[in-house]
Amino acid sequence: MSYYSPSIEKLIEGFEKLPSIGHKTAVRLAFHILDAGEEEITEFVNAITNAKANLKYCSQCFNISDTDPCPICSSPKRDKNTICVVEDVKDIIAMERTHEYKGVYHVLHGSISPMNGIGPDEIKIKELLSRIQNNQEIKEVIIATNPRVEGEATAMYISKILKPMGIKVTRIAHGIPVGGDLEYTDEVTLTKALEGRHEF
Amino acid sequence: MSYYSPSIEKLIEGFEKLPSIGHKTAVRLAFHILDAGEEEITEFVNAITNAKANLKYCSQCFNISDTDPCPICSSPKRDKNTICVVEDVKDIIAMERTHEYKGVYHVLHGSISPMNGIGPDEIKIKELLSRIQNNQEIKEVIIATNPRVEGEATAMYISKILKPMGIKVTRIAHGIPVGGDLEYTDEVTLTKALEGRHEF
Repeated sequence: MSYYSPSIEKLIEGFEKLPSIGHKTAVRLAFHILDAGEEEITEFVNAITNAKANLKYCSQCFNISDTDPCPICSSPKRDKNTICVVEDVKDIIAMERTHEYKGVYHVLHGSISPMNGIGPDEIKIKELLSRIQNNQEIKEVIIATNPRVEGEATAMYISKILKPMGIKVTRIAHGIPVGGDLEYTDEVTLTKALEGRHEF
Repeated sequence: MSYYSPSIEKLIEGFEKLPSIGHKTAVRLAFHILDAGEEEITEFVNAITNAKANLKYCSQCFNISDTDPCPICSSPKRDKNTICVVEDVKDIIAMERTHEYKGVYHVLHGSISPMNGIGPDEIKIKELLSRIQNNQEIKEVIIATNPRVEGEATAMYISKILKPMGIKVTRIAHGIPVGGDLEYTDEVTLTKALEGRHEF
């Protein structure tokens, strides 16, 4: 049984459908909307509809962007001959935050996961291959998929295709996070950290 | 510096303005919106705009409602001669959840707080008085403002006006919450619990 008016109820339900929003937070957000000014509401609603209407995938790297090609692919400052392969658009942001990477990206939009019925054809691997075939200048493909079973499988799959083509394929290092503690590091990570050791 | 496209950036900013939503949650919500279906988005946006457009205050009790009077004030099952005075619309929901209260409400929309420049005229006390004056049948006014300084001051203020009018004014009990622990109860609550003791 509901104690709220239908309009409030619908608004609460709308918020509840969003990830990580429980019932109590949804109620708080709904009442915030009711108290908010006309202008704030219009701005918020426009942000939602515009995002949905304006955003498209970059036809080169499959990043989400207002423009096609995306700002990274169209930037003259970026090295077009180094491609960093990531699973998700959000991973690009994580990489960009390092300010270290100057190449371009390729978003797979997922990882190979036979358990969930996702094979190589369900993610943007074909597009990566044709992109590499069309550019003979490619120097390096850095695979930055997540260090989980699916990400590792995807990394292996891609490297096995690219290596015979004579392309340098690298994988980002796994190890103990900076500021981390050996004592609390799981054994798989520690094994990877040992394997990846380098001389001073 | 922003790593996102302007449309995503605006959407993230929109979510960040909501209470209890930090940057990381805002990013997650924004990307959820980008992934969501056209229908879900339309429904969500409509819920926001409709809530803002349809909802009004009940002219009797100042509850927020799609209708005026609100469902509680217009229900023939409710006892119109018992008024429960609360600070906020959300407090009505809390009371309704008990399934015990069968009277009607009066929402003050705040509490007397000289520190914040809120006097008796800034909240709906005048409206409560005229409501009581227009109904000679009123049996009881239950004051259910929050047990904080402001809520207590408001309760005192209202009771001092109503008592000389010969109206029964009561205050909801304060004490140890059910399932609570004496050991961890603060002394003010414990004092209230002692004062409010009753015979078996």
